[in-house]
Amino acid sequence: MRSVNSWLVLASFAACCILVSSKSGYSKEKIIPLLDATDSLHHQDFDLRDHVSAAIASRWQLEVRTLHGGMQEGVQLLQVDNGRLRTSIVLNRGLSILGVEESLTGERVFGWDSPVKEIVNPMFIDLESRGGLGWLYGFNEWLVRCGLEFAGHPGTDLLRSNTGETKELDLTLHGRIGNIPASKVQVLIDEDKPSYLRIRGVIEERMFYGPQLRLTSDLILVAGKPSIQLEESIQNLSASPQEYQIIYHTNFGTPILQRGSKVVPAAKSVTPMNDHAARSVDRFDLYDAPTIGFTEEVYLVEPWVDEDGMTGAVLHNEAGNCGAMMTWSAETLPYLTIWKNTAGIEDGYVTGIEPGSGYPFNRRIERHFGRVPILQAKETRIFRLNYTYLDSSSSVKTAISRINKIQMDRPRELHHSPPELPKFE
Amino acid sequence: MRSVNSWLVLASFAACCILVSSKSGYSKEKIIPLLDATDSLHHQDFDLRDHVSAAIASRWQLEVRTLHGGMQEGVQLLQVDNGRLRTSIVLNRGLSILGVEESLTGERVFGWDSPVKEIVNPMFIDLESRGGLGWLYGFNEWLVRCGLEFAGHPGTDLLRSNTGETKELDLTLHGRIGNIPASKVQVLIDEDKPSYLRIRGVIEERMFYGPQLRLTSDLILVAGKPSIQLEESIQNLSASPQEYQIIYHTNFGTPILQRGSKVVPAAKSVTPMNDHAARSVDRFDLYDAPTIGFTEEVYLVEPWVDEDGMTGAVLHNEAGNCGAMMTWSAETLPYLTIWKNTAGIEDGYVTGIEPGSGYPFNRRIERHFGRVPILQAKETRIFRLNYTYLDSSSSVKTAISRINKIQMDRPRELHHSPPELPKFE
Amino acid sequence: MRSVNSWLVLASFAACCILVSSKSGYSKEKIIPLLDATDSLHHQDFDLRDHVSAAIASRWQLEVRTLHGGMQEGVQLLQVDNGRLRTSIVLNRGLSILGVEESLTGERVFGWDSPVKEIVNPMFIDLESRGGLGWLYGFNEWLVRCGLEFAGHPGTDLLRSNTGETKELDLTLHGRIGNIPASKVQVLIDEDKPSYLRIRGVIEERMFYGPQLRLTSDLILVAGKPSIQLEESIQNLSASPQEYQIIYHTNFGTPILQRGSKVVPAAKSVTPMNDHAARSVDRFDLYDAPTIGFTEEVYLVEPWVDEDGMTGAVLHNEAGNCGAMMTWSAETLPYLTIWKNTAGIEDGYVTGIEPGSGYPFNRRIERHFGRVPILQAKETRIFRLNYTYLDSSSSVKTAISRINKIQMDRPRELHHSPPELPKFE
Repeated sequence: MRSVNSWLVLASFAACCILVSSKSGYSKEKIIPLLDATDSLHHQDFDLRDHVSAAIASRWQLEVRTLHGGMQEGVQLLQVDNGRLRTSIVLNRGLSILGVEESLTGERVFGWDSPVKEIVNPMFIDLESRGGLGWLYGFNEWLVRCGLEFAGHPGTDLLRSNTGETKELDLTLHGRIGNIPASKVQVLIDEDKPSYLRIRGVIEERMFYGPQLRLTSDLILVAGKPSIQLEESIQNLSASPQEYQIIYHTNFGTPILQRGSKVVPAAKSVTPMNDHAARSVDRFDLYDAPTIGFTEEVYLVEPWVDEDGMTGAVLHNEAGNCGAMMTWSAETLPYLTIWKNTAGIEDGYVTGIEPGSGYPFNRRIERHFGRVPILQAKETRIFRLNYTYLDSSSSVKTAISRINKIQMDRPRELHHSPPELPKFE
Repeated sequence: MRSVNSWLVLASFAACCILVSSKSGYSKEKIIPLLDATDSLHHQDFDLRDHVSAAIASRWQLEVRTLHGGMQEGVQLLQVDNGRLRTSIVLNRGLSILGVEESLTGERVFGWDSPVKEIVNPMFIDLESRGGLGWLYGFNEWLVRCGLEFAGHPGTDLLRSNTGETKELDLTLHGRIGNIPASKVQVLIDEDKPSYLRIRGVIEERMFYGPQLRLTSDLILVAGKPSIQLEESIQNLSASPQEYQIIYHTNFGTPILQRGSKVVPAAKSVTPMNDHAARSVDRFDLYDAPTIGFTEEVYLVEPWVDEDGMTGAVLHNEAGNCGAMMTWSAETLPYLTIWKNTAGIEDGYVTGIEPGSGYPFNRRIERHFGRVPILQAKETRIFRLNYTYLDSSSSVKTAISRINKIQMDRPRELHHSPPELPKFE
Repeated sequence: MRSVNSWLVLASFAACCILVSSKSGYSKEKIIPLLDATDSLHHQDFDLRDHVSAAIASRWQLEVRTLHGGMQEGVQLLQVDNGRLRTSIVLNRGLSILGVEESLTGERVFGWDSPVKEIVNPMFIDLESRGGLGWLYGFNEWLVRCGLEFAGHPGTDLLRSNTGETKELDLTLHGRIGNIPASKVQVLIDEDKPSYLRIRGVIEERMFYGPQLRLTSDLILVAGKPSIQLEESIQNLSASPQEYQIIYHTNFGTPILQRGSKVVPAAKSVTPMNDHAARSVDRFDLYDAPTIGFTEEVYLVEPWVDEDGMTGAVLHNEAGNCGAMMTWSAETLPYLTIWKNTAGIEDGYVTGIEPGSGYPFNRRIERHFGRVPILQAKETRIFRLNYTYLDSSSSVKTAISRINKIQMDRPRELHHSPPELPKFE
């Protein structure tokens, strides 16, 4: 009964698990450096064919291009093609993934149409502008990480300053990590068994008298498979404990999002983020057609978790023959935010499926609810996510049954009013 | 009685009108791309001679140079010479026009001596700094556009946020457009009839949950003529209505500005912007010598308009043999601001003659007075301005008679106190 | 009784004095331009060997490298080696000196381990972020100047705006000068007598309706000597008087700083900056081992001055065989701040010995105490500092005796409470 497609979905999961668990075992992985601030290495333009055998180059295409014009001057875009999907990674924007296309057709698989058309170089971005909403001047990626010092809404938080006093700090929307250029990027490939490839990157969020957090990202692709795996870590490089926050702001537009699309999370509870969203909580999982003037609706999901600590969600179109499956380790990403923004096409018709260490409330509120984790000195935490493109009815069905297996017969509670938030003066 | 010079003035107007009206008719225009973010095209250095015939290259010189050092690192300057004037356009700074020189002598025609000597790359500019006055770190152009979301003084305005709430927004001085790099620049020339040349540029002021405004600028030069024509448009690319503001902040210093210089607008009324300016309103049209410690005086002019919807102003030196004529379509630029800043030479001895969609009050005040226009979804509005260098007594006289023809015998009202402004808490 | 080392110390002082006093006399100095915004000259990569004779190139090495990756994209680092010390100067970061190493061993002489590892390009820095603490995102230099419009702590000050009104201005930590790219850099060398070499640089802190201050820096090295001399000036280019502030924020970590290290200033008085520092004022001159969670202690020193107007301080390790001597002209740098930050190694184990025109309080407080100097129109003020590496017990002893000679038998007063600060509403 299982189609080839559904087999692929499962196979890619299996492959990923093997890869992750044996990460340190691949002694034959060749490391091809693309960028390294330590020794100031960089390639203005890079082509994998100059670095590997013709046999490998026939399976994998990988190029770095430097972009020009407007706000994208100097941006470096890494495009990697595994024969099934072409993934575009923005080196200067915290290794955000701009989008994913079908290798053959060039048609979009993952991504959306933001009104921000250029890939904005962070050197032009002032995160503090517009009352902390400057992040929105560059927002157009399929997957952008929010964090690491703070990941949610702008607003005031308190911190202990260098002089030992408590000071107010104005947080900015979704933090800095998405606007920090990568310090290191490498391609790792086993030349004897080039069935998979890793893009390893490092982004440093550091300052004096402030956080010293390092994100290390492994983006793993399997040749010919329609999926992407992320295995990432955040390390606190300081000698003192440090809070962190991370949200994987993953955004879908057409073709997956359309009138009648549906999101299927393994959900223990669903809570509207504010009164506006509360009015539509009963249909939180259904999407409307593009609606000019639509005001965003945000829902806070507590996921159910399976015996392996995994949870997930499926987003699929109305016909149920096109979609995305996301699964992730709930141990470090125990919360899910669903952001519905079915605005007019020109203004960004998009939904965000966003696993995170917490919800996108201001950090002060998140801390109040115990959702701001702490890393001890030198401590590292690991994050795992898998994204699979579903291109048939059967693969969508298989993916939904995977979610149902996590949900089991456990109930899904719908709250009809937003959480009561603490008041800070 | 008409000299060659005055003829040239009129001829250039005529030529411009022909060009404007037949814009789409020039099917033979060759388009030479200089810069295009869409396909990441750019020329580090460009010379027109590599792209056109020797015959054309003998009439037109056009070069792009990349600047280095200090705050101008990476700035691209386009210089175009029509055999009479050499015009310098800053590609990274919203296509502002740095200045205009005599082709033969290299002497300045339009421009001024700002204390800001370098052409500052916007990547170094923080518009929000100094309470929203960061724009002043880069201000040294002859013509810089203010806008497009807001164009006036810094201060608080209200906007509807993504969550549907009313939020405060701190506007920054003169808006963002002058600090956005151009996304597209082209040279258009008819190789069979290379008597005129266009520089076409596109600047995108976009963000998510914010305005999506596109400025398209045609700067048109006629071979051998001492004038510049701008034909520009602003389009609202959003699916929802959007306010806009635009002010053409055109600034003159020596040689036109000196002790005894005079501005002659076609003015229905002149109102001082504040109490300080009110004290000198009776001599609003006369300029003093450089005065150390001078405090700016700003006058708000309602122009008279002729049967073609045009209005204008002339600025000329004491002797009346050197000056500038500006005419513009009052349909979309119905207001004129005159900024007198006859400070010490080192601090910026300059006057701004500034046609606009409104005055440079904070947008909240402008909206109160009904001077903030709205573009419906996809709507476009067009702006037309002509600048002519007047290099003789006769050309100055001809230009003044043009203004007088607009003014006719209609009265000019001088208000002796500033407008009463609304109070917002 | 004097060792070779102590002779070197004195000799280098003597040499410096000669150089300074005869600055304009060296008509044979060859000027090799590295960078000049005026004519847009720059060298992407530069090597002195391409510009001087082999004989000179054997004594002096000088290279410019362009860095890549992370936040240091595009930063230009100038490294100059006089056969004894290798000094690294960051062209884009206000000619800050990143650090100084032994030529032979490559081991650090001056510098420290900041948690900020990359040399951050100012295009990524928003000084206004974090309530005016954005400067800390790039702080990792051995010597960074604070200033020039303001040099101290963030906070509100009042200024007279362009409209003549009094406005509030939010100052940012330590001012802008350390994040302004140099506008001009030259190497000056006398080819007939190449015993010394100058790096001359110009940084412009300018804006419209604001300060126009030019810093000109001569960094002077003597071949084979373990010392660095700075002869600098600030000029007010405006036609009106202008305040300025400058603090030479000179920072030492290992090897000089360790448990038991000591600072020996020629001190008339020592005052803690706040109550926290007051608790440890009795041992203000002694350093602890790295201490996780340490809160900075800052002490304000009034120096004693010798008959030549010079004052100084020595910092040395516990054994007294490794250290740094600083001397400077107290005429224009009459105040000394000692910043103790013996935090964990990972968080920045460092002390700042900081001669300045004042202390690092907010400018409003400094003005209240009469410590904000004013430059009249066109006026220039000169600043002189000498830094010598002490690599033996005898050189440390000689240096201390130099300080004692300044101190003479004059008393050193320890204040046990911080100064009473004015309250501003």
